[in-house]
Amino acid sequence: MKSTNIVWHEGNVTAADRWRRNGHKGAVIWLTGLSGSGKSTLAHGLEKELFQRSFHAYVLDGDNIRHGLNANLGFSPRDREENIRRVAEMARIMADCGVVVLTGFISPYRKDRRRARRIAGGIDFVEVYVDAPLDVCEQRDPKNLYKKARAGEIKDFTGIDAPYETPEAAEITVRTDRATVEESVAFILEKLLPRLKIDRLPIGL
Amino acid sequence: MKSTNIVWHEGNVTAADRWRRNGHKGAVIWLTGLSGSGKSTLAHGLEKELFQRSFHAYVLDGDNIRHGLNANLGFSPRDREENIRRVAEMARIMADCGVVVLTGFISPYRKDRRRARRIAGGIDFVEVYVDAPLDVCEQRDPKNLYKKARAGEIKDFTGIDAPYETPEAAEITVRTDRATVEESVAFILEKLLPRLKIDRLPIGL
Repeated sequence: MKSTNIVWHEGNVTAADRWRRNGHKGAVIWLTGLSGSGKSTLAHGLEKELFQRSFHAYVLDGDNIRHGLNANLGFSPRDREENIRRVAEMARIMADCGVVVLTGFISPYRKDRRRARRIAGGIDFVEVYVDAPLDVCEQRDPKNLYKKARAGEIKDFTGIDAPYETPEAAEITVRTDRATVEESVAFILEKLLPRLKIDRLPIGL
Repeated sequence: MKSTNIVWHEGNVTAADRWRRNGHKGAVIWLTGLSGSGKSTLAHGLEKELFQRSFHAYVLDGDNIRHGLNANLGFSPRDREENIRRVAEMARIMADCGVVVLTGFISPYRKDRRRARRIAGGIDFVEVYVDAPLDVCEQRDPKNLYKKARAGEIKDFTGIDAPYETPEAAEITVRTDRATVEESVAFILEKLLPRLKIDRLPIGL
């Protein structure tokens, strides 16, 4: 905490005001899994389904946010930690603003995912484990990254020379090697929709 | 640019889709001015007026974002630059998502404000100079920061021992020492509303 001499401004428009008007709560849907497990595909599928149901939904993913907000971060453990922290802060604000935020980041460390949940605070945080065996992800290799990692051209690649810590208590788990994209999207959506209802708002929002 | 091995995912839902459904464009409204000039007050006033007119609007300001996304940044020139860069990236994404983003940051350097505009890309960027003479701001001193800066308790304080580079071509300028909050909000709003209409969408969105 470097920032000092700052005070909170009471917003005139609250999260509850926005959520009521949108007809649904904001939330952080945190997809985690290996590269090639299908996080971005599922996130974009969910975004589309939610949009068609009149929800405000938005995907933040490793591939697009790293061109902007986190363009000055690499893939070392420290940079991954800061990457996840910034995404979590951004997701919190967007959810406060009324959006169902779908994040698609490998986010390999349990500690970082716990922190993302803590950052969400009073906002619903749903961890979705996008599970597929390493060999399946490596076979898919949509961006030829596993090939490069095996050839030593990429360092610190999750699953090859960097660890992936599997979720211990994810709210939702999908096995993308056993279900189609459509099936996985439908499965997650069914679990999500009841959580986005505004009949009960958390205190303080 | 440290990030490598990343590719863009085509989003299925576009900014234009969201803007059309919301009935207005997303935009970045960038308020700049000295501490105590009234940036946050005006931003929150605009947010409320816009919300009441069924716009999606959200304030990002120095006082609240520095508790979260930018809690690991101080007030040195380098940290101020990174502060503004992150806010600009975040504002761009939120505007893409459909929101009229109202940022209230001192953002004292022209170079940084130019960069924020560049980051917005095809999204409308409206620089609002919240202008009040230093002595008026110092007299208001709502957070006792000028007092502390004069006493040497705060370093690098804009207007005291750090520069403020006045905007050369702000889209909107308000003199908050000559108008009430309500007058300034109304003045800005009148200029803003036509720009938020969706009859003309920028190409590529």
